[in-house]
Amino acid sequence: MSTTIDVAESSINVGKEKAVLVAPARRGGWKKGVAIMDFILRLGAIAAALGAATTMGMSDQTLPFFTQFFQFEASYDSFTTFQFFVITMALVAGYLVLSLPFSIVTIIRPHAAGPRLFLIVLDTVFLTLASASGASAAAIVYLAHNGNQDANWLAICNQFTDFCAQTSGAVVSSFVAVVIFVFLIVMSSLAISKH
Amino acid sequence: MSTTIDVAESSINVGKEKAVLVAPARRGGWKKGVAIMDFILRLGAIAAALGAATTMGMSDQTLPFFTQFFQFEASYDSFTTFQFFVITMALVAGYLVLSLPFSIVTIIRPHAAGPRLFLIVLDTVFLTLASASGASAAAIVYLAHNGNQDANWLAICNQFTDFCAQTSGAVVSSFVAVVIFVFLIVMSSLAISKH
Repeated sequence: MSTTIDVAESSINVGKEKAVLVAPARRGGWKKGVAIMDFILRLGAIAAALGAATTMGMSDQTLPFFTQFFQFEASYDSFTTFQFFVITMALVAGYLVLSLPFSIVTIIRPHAAGPRLFLIVLDTVFLTLASASGASAAAIVYLAHNGNQDANWLAICNQFTDFCAQTSGAVVSSFVAVVIFVFLIVMSSLAISKH
Repeated sequence: MSTTIDVAESSINVGKEKAVLVAPARRGGWKKGVAIMDFILRLGAIAAALGAATTMGMSDQTLPFFTQFFQFEASYDSFTTFQFFVITMALVAGYLVLSLPFSIVTIIRPHAAGPRLFLIVLDTVFLTLASASGASAAAIVYLAHNGNQDANWLAICNQFTDFCAQTSGAVVSSFVAVVIFVFLIVMSSLAISKH
């Protein structure tokens, strides 16, 4: 910015001044573009994380037949891993909403390293959380679909078809959030490395 | 660097010159320290990832009793998730070994942004892989320990005690690698942001 003013003061040529005013905007232009892309991707990740948390949280199926003592019901509380999934995905969505102001700061000041660094560090932590909960839920969904012969665990998806469809959908949605997180970190570190 | 030479040229005082010569080394010193720490942490992560892969890969237990048709045996091949765990952890260890030369480059040239950026991007990808495989294996280990009443999956750790101990150890080891990865990314992005 200071060079811009210096050159503008020393030159009275209008055409030259224009060129000088445009040049710094262009140089920072791709960083601003990255920051705007960051903001949009964050909105997408919020949608994916919220979708994953609510789909899993709403998953509940009661089978239409029951014995004298027992009614067959499966919901996300049946599996500790799915409870963990709902809590972590809600946390990730909450973090993403709170990170939006920082993303806006990087749009306004594309050259500031502070906010980007802050976002990279927290994004890394929440990427770990999101991928851990997504993968552990995927492991349980896989077991529910296929069972395991050696441990004598039978597949439950033959009965609980809706429950399995909902939990599978939630897992896919969480992986979308994970992929977006990876892109966010790569983009931010690219922008931070080119001063 | 240019300011250093300017001051050295303008002053003939030996004491002053010494101070000037020391200053730039110090300024880049913490970056070199970060790079050396990065290298040491990578060695630790290699040990953790290799330990996780081999412990899981060696897990195998045959129960001392058997029926006429069936012998009770549990090994990592019994569970698809554990197979995935062994493969991913071996991949992560392989990547970490291959990343050591780049880590050495950042020690030799602490101010170069390129190798650090390269490491951040690949570290992020392999962090995702490591945390996904660690968490999914943890979900299965939890099920093996506790079972699940709603799905009628019984805990198998009452019988397969050694198998469960080995797989639990492998999961813990993988989480050590995940924590180290988070530190690596945070340190690299800190070093890359301060030019």
